Amino acid sequence: MPIVRVELWTGRTQAQKRELARVITEAVVNIAHTTPEATIVIFQDIDKEDWAQGGALASETTE
Amino acid sequence: MPIVRVELWTGRTQAQKRELARVITEAVVNIAHTTPEATIVIFQDIDKEDWAQGGALASETTE
Amino acid sequence: MPIVRVELWTGRTQAQKRELARVITEAVVNIAHTTPEATIVIFQDIDKEDWAQGGALASETTE
Amino acid sequence: MPIVRVELWTGRTQAQKRELARVITEAVVNIAHTTPEATIVIFQDIDKEDWAQGGALASETTE
Amino acid sequence: MPIVRVELWTGRTQAQKRELARVITEAVVNIAHTTPEATIVIFQDIDKEDWAQGGALASETTE
Amino acid sequence: MPIVRVELWTGRTQAQKRELARVITEAVVNIAHTTPEATIVIFQDIDKEDWAQGGALASETTE
Repeated sequence: MPIVRVELWTGRTQAQKRELARVITEAVVNIAHTTPEATIVIFQDIDKEDWAQGGALASETTE
Repeated sequence: MPIVRVELWTGRTQAQKRELARVITEAVVNIAHTTPEATIVIFQDIDKEDWAQGGALASETTE
Repeated sequence: MPIVRVELWTGRTQAQKRELARVITEAVVNIAHTTPEATIVIFQDIDKEDWAQGGALASETTE
Repeated sequence: MPIVRVELWTGRTQAQKRELARVITEAVVNIAHTTPEATIVIFQDIDKEDWAQGGALASETTE
Repeated sequence: MPIVRVELWTGRTQAQKRELARVITEAVVNIAHTTPEATIVIFQDIDKEDWAQGGALASETTE
Repeated sequence: MPIVRVELWTGRTQAQKRELARVITEAVVNIAHTTPEATIVIFQDIDKEDWAQGGALASETTE
């Protein structure tokens, strides 16, 4: 604890996830007063086919 | 907000997800009094190997 | 299966949840070809203090 | 209900998931006084590239 | 890792959760070959007003 | 999108959540190249009675 779950569109690189994990962990440790070892960050890729806003799939409304 | 998350068995088509996103968004907007733009629908495919009911994996009890 | 999870701001009534459950279940049954009995809908109330968009808590930017 | 969601690193076998589903369902039925048919277990594989602890991705700190 | 999330109807006692945490952790350690320290179990109480099956809220169909 | 979900032990203040939302949103915008308006952060408080590690509830092993 804490557990941070980040849902991103598929396609973010390993480098972006590495940097996000580092910065989010640092923020959580500093602000919520916990330790890095107790802080878990999980990434979940979401395809644009699996995500809708305004009632339409993102795969059909964005490029 | 609202965020609606729909877990379905793998295999539903893009057309089914498109129609589900449309109808669910319409229901949420009408009943919960929000806007389409504020309503997010996320689909998550679950394989039958990853889902159990009655203590048995669906991949081994259904066809 | 399917499992539908609906996150709404705290304050929606029992009547709204009842109607949402009914309409969403009907949509899932018709579109994804499953049965009402196999369809689960779970509501999770989120307080505006626990939800941020644009980097600011909804409790401090909406009324 | 109940719904049990198990996040594991990618790579566990079908046999391990089958055994986990069986044992967890049995525990939930006995301890929480429900039925096997009402108990759902869902597995979600997480890649080590998608999981960080201590601010570092597991894919870069474990082998 | 692993993370196990258990959704139960509100009303299970502290003793039931303690026993569930103990037995589920033991099962995960033995079957998925991990350590107790790496295994997290999180309970989430769901009110019957927030859970529907067959299109109807459990608060209105069960007692 | 992105959606960030932060599970924290109950007791963090509104000020801590406000600061976490601000810093996490900034990190996601900069690193994942999105906009603040598209970035949602949701906090979920977990009681120590509802969280176990090493097979024991945190309410019985921490103070």
